[in-house]
Amino acid sequence: MAFIHENFLLSGQAARRLYHAFAASEPILDYHNHLPPKELAENRRFRNLTEIWLEGDHYKWRAMRANGVPEELCTGPAEPYQKFLAWARTVPHTLRNPLYHWTHLELKRYFGIEELLDETTAPAIWARTSEMLATDELSVHGILRKFQVKALCTTDDPIDDLRYHAQIAKNPMGAIVLPAFRPDKALNVHVPELYNPWLDSLGEAAGLTVRNFQSLLDALGKRHDYFHSMGSRLSDHGLNCAPPVHGTENEAADIFERARNGQAADPAEQQLFAGVLMRFFGHLDAGKGWTKQLHLGARRGNNTRMVARLGPDTGFDSIGDYPQIDALGNFLNALDSAGSLPRMILYNLNPSDNYAMATMVGNFMDGSIAGRIQFGSGWWFLDQKEAMEWQMNALSNCGLLSRFVGMLTDSRSFMSYPRHEYFRRTLCNLIGQDIEAGLLPDSDALAGPMIRNICFANAKNFLGLPGVE
Amino acid sequence: MAFIHENFLLSGQAARRLYHAFAASEPILDYHNHLPPKELAENRRFRNLTEIWLEGDHYKWRAMRANGVPEELCTGPAEPYQKFLAWARTVPHTLRNPLYHWTHLELKRYFGIEELLDETTAPAIWARTSEMLATDELSVHGILRKFQVKALCTTDDPIDDLRYHAQIAKNPMGAIVLPAFRPDKALNVHVPELYNPWLDSLGEAAGLTVRNFQSLLDALGKRHDYFHSMGSRLSDHGLNCAPPVHGTENEAADIFERARNGQAADPAEQQLFAGVLMRFFGHLDAGKGWTKQLHLGARRGNNTRMVARLGPDTGFDSIGDYPQIDALGNFLNALDSAGSLPRMILYNLNPSDNYAMATMVGNFMDGSIAGRIQFGSGWWFLDQKEAMEWQMNALSNCGLLSRFVGMLTDSRSFMSYPRHEYFRRTLCNLIGQDIEAGLLPDSDALAGPMIRNICFANAKNFLGLPGVE
Amino acid sequence: MAFIHENFLLSGQAARRLYHAFAASEPILDYHNHLPPKELAENRRFRNLTEIWLEGDHYKWRAMRANGVPEELCTGPAEPYQKFLAWARTVPHTLRNPLYHWTHLELKRYFGIEELLDETTAPAIWARTSEMLATDELSVHGILRKFQVKALCTTDDPIDDLRYHAQIAKNPMGAIVLPAFRPDKALNVHVPELYNPWLDSLGEAAGLTVRNFQSLLDALGKRHDYFHSMGSRLSDHGLNCAPPVHGTENEAADIFERARNGQAADPAEQQLFAGVLMRFFGHLDAGKGWTKQLHLGARRGNNTRMVARLGPDTGFDSIGDYPQIDALGNFLNALDSAGSLPRMILYNLNPSDNYAMATMVGNFMDGSIAGRIQFGSGWWFLDQKEAMEWQMNALSNCGLLSRFVGMLTDSRSFMSYPRHEYFRRTLCNLIGQDIEAGLLPDSDALAGPMIRNICFANAKNFLGLPGVE
Repeated sequence: MAFIHENFLLSGQAARRLYHAFAASEPILDYHNHLPPKELAENRRFRNLTEIWLEGDHYKWRAMRANGVPEELCTGPAEPYQKFLAWARTVPHTLRNPLYHWTHLELKRYFGIEELLDETTAPAIWARTSEMLATDELSVHGILRKFQVKALCTTDDPIDDLRYHAQIAKNPMGAIVLPAFRPDKALNVHVPELYNPWLDSLGEAAGLTVRNFQSLLDALGKRHDYFHSMGSRLSDHGLNCAPPVHGTENEAADIFERARNGQAADPAEQQLFAGVLMRFFGHLDAGKGWTKQLHLGARRGNNTRMVARLGPDTGFDSIGDYPQIDALGNFLNALDSAGSLPRMILYNLNPSDNYAMATMVGNFMDGSIAGRIQFGSGWWFLDQKEAMEWQMNALSNCGLLSRFVGMLTDSRSFMSYPRHEYFRRTLCNLIGQDIEAGLLPDSDALAGPMIRNICFANAKNFLGLPGVE
Repeated sequence: MAFIHENFLLSGQAARRLYHAFAASEPILDYHNHLPPKELAENRRFRNLTEIWLEGDHYKWRAMRANGVPEELCTGPAEPYQKFLAWARTVPHTLRNPLYHWTHLELKRYFGIEELLDETTAPAIWARTSEMLATDELSVHGILRKFQVKALCTTDDPIDDLRYHAQIAKNPMGAIVLPAFRPDKALNVHVPELYNPWLDSLGEAAGLTVRNFQSLLDALGKRHDYFHSMGSRLSDHGLNCAPPVHGTENEAADIFERARNGQAADPAEQQLFAGVLMRFFGHLDAGKGWTKQLHLGARRGNNTRMVARLGPDTGFDSIGDYPQIDALGNFLNALDSAGSLPRMILYNLNPSDNYAMATMVGNFMDGSIAGRIQFGSGWWFLDQKEAMEWQMNALSNCGLLSRFVGMLTDSRSFMSYPRHEYFRRTLCNLIGQDIEAGLLPDSDALAGPMIRNICFANAKNFLGLPGVE
Repeated sequence: MAFIHENFLLSGQAARRLYHAFAASEPILDYHNHLPPKELAENRRFRNLTEIWLEGDHYKWRAMRANGVPEELCTGPAEPYQKFLAWARTVPHTLRNPLYHWTHLELKRYFGIEELLDETTAPAIWARTSEMLATDELSVHGILRKFQVKALCTTDDPIDDLRYHAQIAKNPMGAIVLPAFRPDKALNVHVPELYNPWLDSLGEAAGLTVRNFQSLLDALGKRHDYFHSMGSRLSDHGLNCAPPVHGTENEAADIFERARNGQAADPAEQQLFAGVLMRFFGHLDAGKGWTKQLHLGARRGNNTRMVARLGPDTGFDSIGDYPQIDALGNFLNALDSAGSLPRMILYNLNPSDNYAMATMVGNFMDGSIAGRIQFGSGWWFLDQKEAMEWQMNALSNCGLLSRFVGMLTDSRSFMSYPRHEYFRRTLCNLIGQDIEAGLLPDSDALAGPMIRNICFANAKNFLGLPGVE
């Protein structure tokens, strides 16, 4: 039997029945990813697996490095086929790593390939996939159709003019493509040499001059309006921890003014500033009914030598063990007290914090909508069977799984759409196992709608993306 | 087959055999709960499920809020039946949450109801339960008889006159009802406006005037004596973390004096004060052979807007991620060094700390009694199958499960007695699964007595409650 | 069926097949333990189970204390047989603790005993084992042969003259016995009364006078050279957390000078000093191609009363909850930036940190060797089935299990060699279960070599111990 067969990840009859009846055919709403708008607009085609699979995939680079592969074959100038071969040689060493599953699930779903990838099967797989990638079916638009992607949200800088989103809006492709507002760079008062050029661009984008703190807020507000007009309904922030809430706008204004004049904020000032701005962003999002995403807990750029050489997002990030809960509780509470708590999705990178996070979201629910503050799906290193199960178990035990907005790819690659399938199989497997253990009633009428909702409808209803029904 | 059947939670023959042979018929010793002494003394009867089930149950309120139910139907002025209906509509959305299990286990054990609760079954269930609640069998005393509750310990403020305990002692009801000493308010030097009236009441209760720190200690000592005379053998403390141990009595006396004069202690002073007083409480408990309980790790009152509206214990608390171990180790060590380490039970709210806590208790065992310092059962958010298993696995791997004092309800509701059954099934399931996997010898002579002891005899022997045999 | 049978811990056909085909017959490379070189050199024989089993085993003492056994029968002056009896009485209370498994696995593998140990079987077991311990087969050398120990590394102080290692080298015993460099005492600037005599011995061993910081470095370097000449290829450090990296050699020199003159460093100074020295040790290890081990996260000596009475390593240590990741990331990065990052193995004592650690090691991989920075096997309290599985799952999900250097005993006892078998069964069980659940291809050609490598070849290739092939 093929490794990736119809009941892959589904142990037991209940899981199988539920997956095929309720999950398999649901469309995809990929509400957070890092896909390039340009490639979406221009319907990129890929020449080979190295382009679509290894380019920019720091998960694979990390695995290759751990396997002793020299950097040349990861991110370096080696020939595409040599890079693919280095990856193929690494694959058998990824047994029990999610990459082993993803690799073969992707080969199967995109190319119908059932062989296990290794050095011996690499040449034939390269040939076949190169041929298929040349077809319409595996262009960007073909892929979105193939996987029934109903809508997706990219991740965009407030200074972005969203020209590709505009282009897509004019030439619809089936999937609705919307921007999301990620203003991390607005917090960079500690690196004026990066911050000031960004502020200049921000002012330009907003049609004003960013002279002082108030004009920063004005400019950000204008960009938020513009993103809204372009269909954005989500913001996103990457933070070690939630910011402190003790700072005032006046203090932030001082810090800003100094940074604008080239004087870097110290860490405490930067945090204070971040806290003031993050409350402002909460106010913006709450005011327009957006959903705010927080990605908490990464420790980025651990290897300064390699990051200096290769730049960020190249595979030198990992899980932090920051204290999270006091800061998060205070931040949510400050927004709530100010009447500016938007709907939120909190993503957590350290599984040790799952339970504490899953209970924290429960303190800010209200009668406005079910699952108002979401504990988001397993993220990054946690986007795999073991950790997805932990996240779903924490959410189930401390909250309502039934109201969960479910999966997103968070990916930079067009090869990641089977992650939704992977998630759905894992979800159905959990529920099916519970049913077979007598922990849930054996009732499709109970479990079926819950599964279907988690696959698509919950996210659709929660996010209220324009045009997505 | 009914959802709650005789082998609910028991997978495999070994688990089933062990549960029915060794656990099912053991009596209950509910050594920590928050049941109202007045209702125990007066043998309260309940008019309907809303009264006995939803009144005061912040677990259910949290679930309802997460389900988008307006506050009016949780804690507000809505009609009892409307509140019940709102709960019934929420229940199908609690699939995989312990509430789903508890709800149906309670409906079955109290009322013999096997239907799953939802909006459609709600009217008939309301009618039937209202009728049955009117009978003697479901009065408070009836409930205690029904569940074979041999003894229970309430949780009481040192200023309480224990009049209801005295009334119960005069009119025994079958179950022995004892008070427990919870002096959290004695630490409130940071809120003089609450602290001083409490000190006045304390002095009154103790028959002296609380003028200075020494008279505070005297008054607390007298109340401890009085509680002892009323059968109390347990104290209890709710703390974020164990307190620091560096403070002296003189420093504490200064802080106290200022608080007594209306000047609030700052956080560091309050902690220092707490550390001095907690060592004093250790001395009191050790001196009389009591067992001290510490509840560690909650972050309470996260939503200040809602807590201001509804008060404490209304569902806005969650799990903290405080550093625990240095403080706890130092506190236990200080008590041990001073010869005033009582028997203890440590309850932990963050499952990430399970292993560290389970090893810490092992540093203070001695030849006086088996399991001298206990790692307590899964508490609050952890009082469910997944987290109970974690607690028992941590205790098993880092200590002696065999010496565990087992389950307690910690509940404010008379509907919670099936939690003991839930725990026992979970325990037997763990052990039965181990037997079937060959991880334990297949010997009832080994596993049976261990199970029986954890259900009742260990707690009985460890706590030495008067009259409990 | 006997409790310890041929498929103990192996559930399912795949696990059984894999274990017997690929793991069972691999030799042992016990690259980290605390076995006494003297006993190795002199081929110690043991008179009875108390000598070989209870002497120095703080795991068993902790269990006995938790069972209410008085100290006299743990570490005190009681008769050997009485101590054994106290242990035998405790054993049935260790159900679900790893001691229950280890005890019976050891009785079976060393003595062929299949009875379960308890008070009733104790006399016959004592008699039989005493008789067998008198034979050559159960002398130290006999034991090493019996368990196919190809090589082992002890743990040694830099001041040690390694005379027993020299003696062993002259009279080979089958197993290669090498020293490892554990310079923890070089960091003791905060306890000059212990530090200065140690520095005197260090100087003596190195043939120079340790007057100042530079001569400390010189002396340590000379001892490192000497250890290298004696076959050492591993260093080891026991630390709460990785040390800070902000200190300079000049600052360290000042602190050292004061300590050399009897003035204790304060905690911040000690940490700064440790950071400077640990970077120096990194440089030494990297220069000679050694592997550096860090044991992180223990909180030692929690019960000062008992430690004052019995000394260190007597069962009063536990798991800390220190923040680990910032310090560890900075330390690894500082070594990497300075070009002095050796191969490393990081052992973690708090399972809550598993994922963060497993991702951190991935930031410092490179093309030099597969698995350059290892996430080490479950250690101390984590050296049992549940926690070994956690470690292997974390490593699998965040890195490459395939490149894992596997098991070590870390033991002070010659009765611990079955721990390798325990580990291998656990490993094969994990993989076998994955195969049966369809999570891995059902291919011995894939899983078999991986298992075999984790048992022996990975450690052999990674460590490059002289003479080990």
